[in-house]
Amino acid sequence: MKMAHLITHCSFSASPAVNTFSGSPGYCCNVGQLQNSKSSNLSLKSSFKRQKKPYVTCASAAVQGQTQTPLTGSQEASGHSSSKSKKVMVIGGDGYCGWATALHLSNKGYEVAIVDNLVRRLFDHQLGLDSLTPITSIQNRVRRWKSLTGKTIQLFIGDICDFDFLSEAFKSFEPDAAVHFGEQRSAPYSMIDRSRAVYTQHNNVIGTLNVLFAIKEYSEECHLVKLGTMGEYGTPNIDIEEGFITITHNGRTDTLPYPKQASSFYHLSKVHDSHNIAFTCKAWGIRATDLNQGVVYGVRTDETAMHEELSNRFDYDGVFGTALNRFCVQAAVGHPLTVYGKGGQTRGYLDIRDTVQCVELAIANPAKPGEFRVFNQFTEQFSVNDLAKLVTAAGAKLGLDVQTKSVPNPRVEAEEHYYNAKHTKLIELGLVPHLLSDSLLDSLLNFAVQYKDRVDTAQIMPSVSWKKMGAKPRTVSV
Amino acid sequence: MKMAHLITHCSFSASPAVNTFSGSPGYCCNVGQLQNSKSSNLSLKSSFKRQKKPYVTCASAAVQGQTQTPLTGSQEASGHSSSKSKKVMVIGGDGYCGWATALHLSNKGYEVAIVDNLVRRLFDHQLGLDSLTPITSIQNRVRRWKSLTGKTIQLFIGDICDFDFLSEAFKSFEPDAAVHFGEQRSAPYSMIDRSRAVYTQHNNVIGTLNVLFAIKEYSEECHLVKLGTMGEYGTPNIDIEEGFITITHNGRTDTLPYPKQASSFYHLSKVHDSHNIAFTCKAWGIRATDLNQGVVYGVRTDETAMHEELSNRFDYDGVFGTALNRFCVQAAVGHPLTVYGKGGQTRGYLDIRDTVQCVELAIANPAKPGEFRVFNQFTEQFSVNDLAKLVTAAGAKLGLDVQTKSVPNPRVEAEEHYYNAKHTKLIELGLVPHLLSDSLLDSLLNFAVQYKDRVDTAQIMPSVSWKKMGAKPRTVSV
Repeated sequence: MKMAHLITHCSFSASPAVNTFSGSPGYCCNVGQLQNSKSSNLSLKSSFKRQKKPYVTCASAAVQGQTQTPLTGSQEASGHSSSKSKKVMVIGGDGYCGWATALHLSNKGYEVAIVDNLVRRLFDHQLGLDSLTPITSIQNRVRRWKSLTGKTIQLFIGDICDFDFLSEAFKSFEPDAAVHFGEQRSAPYSMIDRSRAVYTQHNNVIGTLNVLFAIKEYSEECHLVKLGTMGEYGTPNIDIEEGFITITHNGRTDTLPYPKQASSFYHLSKVHDSHNIAFTCKAWGIRATDLNQGVVYGVRTDETAMHEELSNRFDYDGVFGTALNRFCVQAAVGHPLTVYGKGGQTRGYLDIRDTVQCVELAIANPAKPGEFRVFNQFTEQFSVNDLAKLVTAAGAKLGLDVQTKSVPNPRVEAEEHYYNAKHTKLIELGLVPHLLSDSLLDSLLNFAVQYKDRVDTAQIMPSVSWKKMGAKPRTVSV
Repeated sequence: MKMAHLITHCSFSASPAVNTFSGSPGYCCNVGQLQNSKSSNLSLKSSFKRQKKPYVTCASAAVQGQTQTPLTGSQEASGHSSSKSKKVMVIGGDGYCGWATALHLSNKGYEVAIVDNLVRRLFDHQLGLDSLTPITSIQNRVRRWKSLTGKTIQLFIGDICDFDFLSEAFKSFEPDAAVHFGEQRSAPYSMIDRSRAVYTQHNNVIGTLNVLFAIKEYSEECHLVKLGTMGEYGTPNIDIEEGFITITHNGRTDTLPYPKQASSFYHLSKVHDSHNIAFTCKAWGIRATDLNQGVVYGVRTDETAMHEELSNRFDYDGVFGTALNRFCVQAAVGHPLTVYGKGGQTRGYLDIRDTVQCVELAIANPAKPGEFRVFNQFTEQFSVNDLAKLVTAAGAKLGLDVQTKSVPNPRVEAEEHYYNAKHTKLIELGLVPHLLSDSLLDSLLNFAVQYKDRVDTAQIMPSVSWKKMGAKPRTVSV
């Protein structure tokens, strides 16, 4: 099943694209969309010295409407990286959080490589979903970034479940830090049916194991910054601490991993990852930071706002859309906000601008060798009803008559519960949060209104039931 | 990749066996060893009514030296099962604990089916290991059991990671309880190299997910009895409870899953399973008992002692051998007992006769729908040094001069630590333990002495380092 992941030194012609990469089990994706690129002067070059391995490509072509001589490989390698700058591998760098993070780190002077198999785009094709914002190919994205800033982002297109591919990426790039977003990240997706549950746990657990082994084998000092989720903790009736809790029991005391109560096969996969990572820190001396992230909202960062081709994806559907983003889109198109059940479900939330800030803080202040560090990465807590009220009020200011309706909760979760999660460690490192003030919510809602003609209202409703599973994926009526 | 798992109604001839089954990724095993059976009058028959599915075979042939007319399928189906008897599927029923359990349950009047892909036998081939006791094929085993007791054990030969296979087994057998031993169960095996770490977690996690989905789809009332391990808890500095702990924190109280600190990729896979099972109990109403088992010793049960062809496997090597079994073999052949490091590592232990008793108690007293129940399944705690002293004393009574030596600890673990684990729930259900009195240890040591000519001393030493991983499997000098 080994295939070249992307052929180096190819130039585009009218012949059909045949370069494929080995996807995760059952998935195979064609990168032929490059042929449809609008770029007028296009070639792909290898950006690393040993040309024997065909994995890495670096987009170095001129973008449409500009002229630029493609750089040679050696120019690429030395042109824009300071010898002092840290090298950061962003695994899953084509996704919602990953793309924003890759640009942010590149902008801050880090030397960035994106590792991604692009399977998130395949999920959209298969489920009939689309980002509210048009997004261009990853190749166009990094080309545009280079044309605007002069900064190179290397691309490694392939599957981290393929250890040969991942090994070559590590050996070639030699990262100082690996930020790992490269997982199937939707709870509803993992609950569609058995095959997607199995895919999610296999992909996430084995992919992360491979990253750990790659660090052990090839970049022992590399700091793993792993995206976890606040959902690992569930909703216990006691305060949630950051990763560990000190327990006194029968007269003895120990500090132990905080008990986990995940509520979907996706969330469970993150719990599994956390345990695996903790063990390798102890056994091999891996240095790792587990960022248990809350629900992310927003779309624009300083970098993605620079050009429409840098635009981030914005999911509002019932599978990949996060709560606040979905509510804003519903409000924009006059669809009632769909509150699951009683709406008392309370979680931690953060602006995507804080996601990129937190990751940067973790990288700049790395864990020590052997240390397994857990940060709760969110800035504020809201219940679903809180969010609905905020969106209703923001809508009124825009003249929108926002309605709310309760829909049967597709999830198995407490709808009214205690929730108090600590989140001080990133603040202590210097996080300056973007809180959900009226003005921020206004701009998010405005953003949704701006794109409302692109909304497919059929995507908005929940389509996955935790209890029933086995439902067929949504079929699009044509 | 779909293949018939074992062809029904085949009779043996001189032609090469071609029936294979799809093993776990990277593994494929040939069941051609049946051809080398000593049985003289051999045929394989399907034992269930719908003949379309070629998965299940039931050994119904006469064994060597006896004459018996093979039963027809319908005779098989009705001959030995009471309509009142519970049907128990023993997944992994060809292994050390699984085989003893299958026989015990069959003896107690349960209708038993074994599901196994026999990959444990492949591991022996690949690593150059062998059971101290000669074991015959699973087909011969169940034939011998039938000839001695008249009781039928159905065989489903295949891989539970293959959901089509598992589904057919569930639909055919319709189990009231599924006892799940079907996992790669060696910590050192999981630490040999990356591919075996990945194999262990994939095989165990995905296999268990498939079992959960099969119960959900085909046997909603089926009680899952899952073998976990005491190693999930690690060695915390507080008392270990049975699955859950009540924590008071900042003035609030909740009962939460006991924190897990597993110390190998194998132990971690069991932690992952536990979380997955707990979730499905909550989300789907699965009824499950997680048996967190200690280290098992001994080999004979009432049933395996009935005939040499029913003999259980007895592993003493550095990969699959458990501590006390290995020490007895070392004492028997005059090899120093190999204590890892300081020898203060303390764990829970139990006699294999208590393993089968505990599983029976769990089945006879099932969890309620939606209940996730955890029992700590061991009877006594010993440190490694305790065991060495006990074996030394028992050896002296047999005239053996038993030496002990400390070898570098291949594991990453505390060598001196607090350890106090609760284990009352199975006692409350009626467990009458076989404690490691002198006489029991004497008989185990005598057993090892009886087989000492079969000992391969090269197998005794630890061959896997937790820190170094990547070592090649032991090569056998010839």
